[in-house]
Amino acid sequence: MPSLAEQREQFATLLTRPLPPDVRSSATTLGGRPALELRVETPGTAGQDVLLYFHGGGFVVGAARVPAHLTVALLRHLDGRALSLDYRLAPEHPFPAAPDDCLAAYRELLDSGADPRRLVIAGDSAGAALAVVTMTRAREAGLPLPAAAVLFSPVTDLTLSGASLQSKDGIDPIFTRAELEWYFAQYVPDGDRSAPGASPLFADLTGLPPLLIQVGSSEVLLDDAVRLAGRAGADEVAVTLEVAPGRPHVFQLTESAEAAAALDRAGRFLASWLPDGEAPARSPQAGSDTDKDGR
Amino acid sequence: MPSLAEQREQFATLLTRPLPPDVRSSATTLGGRPALELRVETPGTAGQDVLLYFHGGGFVVGAARVPAHLTVALLRHLDGRALSLDYRLAPEHPFPAAPDDCLAAYRELLDSGADPRRLVIAGDSAGAALAVVTMTRAREAGLPLPAAAVLFSPVTDLTLSGASLQSKDGIDPIFTRAELEWYFAQYVPDGDRSAPGASPLFADLTGLPPLLIQVGSSEVLLDDAVRLAGRAGADEVAVTLEVAPGRPHVFQLTESAEAAAALDRAGRFLASWLPDGEAPARSPQAGSDTDKDGR
Repeated sequence: MPSLAEQREQFATLLTRPLPPDVRSSATTLGGRPALELRVETPGTAGQDVLLYFHGGGFVVGAARVPAHLTVALLRHLDGRALSLDYRLAPEHPFPAAPDDCLAAYRELLDSGADPRRLVIAGDSAGAALAVVTMTRAREAGLPLPAAAVLFSPVTDLTLSGASLQSKDGIDPIFTRAELEWYFAQYVPDGDRSAPGASPLFADLTGLPPLLIQVGSSEVLLDDAVRLAGRAGADEVAVTLEVAPGRPHVFQLTESAEAAAALDRAGRFLASWLPDGEAPARSPQAGSDTDKDGR
Repeated sequence: MPSLAEQREQFATLLTRPLPPDVRSSATTLGGRPALELRVETPGTAGQDVLLYFHGGGFVVGAARVPAHLTVALLRHLDGRALSLDYRLAPEHPFPAAPDDCLAAYRELLDSGADPRRLVIAGDSAGAALAVVTMTRAREAGLPLPAAAVLFSPVTDLTLSGASLQSKDGIDPIFTRAELEWYFAQYVPDGDRSAPGASPLFADLTGLPPLLIQVGSSEVLLDDAVRLAGRAGADEVAVTLEVAPGRPHVFQLTESAEAAAALDRAGRFLASWLPDGEAPARSPQAGSDTDKDGR
């Protein structure tokens, strides 16, 4: 097995794509951790929207810069900046270091004046788990929640109890169950992997903002996404789940028209929930005083 | 308990709404059964799209005319006509009379020259079950499948095994488990209610066209929808699930902004999968050569 450093280097080399020429990226810190700030050069815009992004990599590999092109694709639908966080990684920093970093980053954004109605969260894979956990912990801490969130192929169940762990074994071109077990053992070496702070499938999701979940049908993690949609819906969250046939884990990272279309939908979903966004025609919404039948 | 005739009259009185003045409705037959043909008066259009609609009512009550305003809301996104079928009802005509009628209707549409690429199916509640079953039976019969389907609060599991049957009991303003049991006992008095022709959750859904499933979070049938999305996704079907918080069973039948928005999304979903539809920006899709952006 390659060393951790080699694994991280290989992962980053494989998946990082150059940023488009109209994107400015700069190193910053957020919640005491390094972060990558991304802006699309569009002079004359107000720029108050904030997208907080959590990268994937099984809590062990990955880095803020790896999915930056994906983050930028979402950012193009907003009017502001994105921040992709380098949260601490396992095994050097096991659970709950990563969610602690993510919550600290979210808190610093609010403390520095970000308007939660203009704040959205996204993440892929393990980063999508962290996105959900950050929202449930923010709710428990009495913080305002973001306006919406997008979850790409979310990890939601570290106990690996989804049926697709079996049914998609050998079909999934990226993961086997054993590989996922290895990652999750690095992240939560001791303690209960079903704890809601580690496995958001088992969290109370009440009060979360509208969620868009995208997953590929080829994934062993398919049921992590489907079950999270069911869990969120049962907790009265407005949730849209999209299953893309024949697609692998976080297919949005690949260079394909399929990825571009999915990212376009995701970006428009986020924008639709901002105060001046379009009417959220793409997503179910909670009853409100615009609701004529008064339910 | 009111008589069957009284139940059917009450159900129809409660839910039937007048059709808009620009809609022409006429009685016809399809697959040997009465059907309601609906057209929106838009002179000068080609009019080759066909929407086949299956009403709800627990396989026992309901009629083609009851959800006609909903059918028309979908039809406004298409260029053609809708046919809402009066399939045979239980207990006078138990399973498989209804799915036999639905398949006969679908087959007659094809035999009479309807282009399956311009044919879409929709249904609510029990009618959504019939929509899925009609597609799986059409596939088994070697018939071409429709271009897309929309399922409102689908019944998918006549064995009532979804967790929401318990968790939403007392929250659902429309159904109790006991009421659903009564309906399904009329429909499948003998035999196996888990048979795939009765409970499409247990069917092989391979090859089905893109599905949009809408469900309310207040429903005891919530998990019928969530599990169907998971099942379809696992079978490589492009599926979008929308859970609308706080909404009851087939909330699209009510007069509300929420219902109108959901129907607008559903209509655009159907239109996006027609040969000359807009790029299907709202829905995941498999790569295909009809894909306009070159996927």
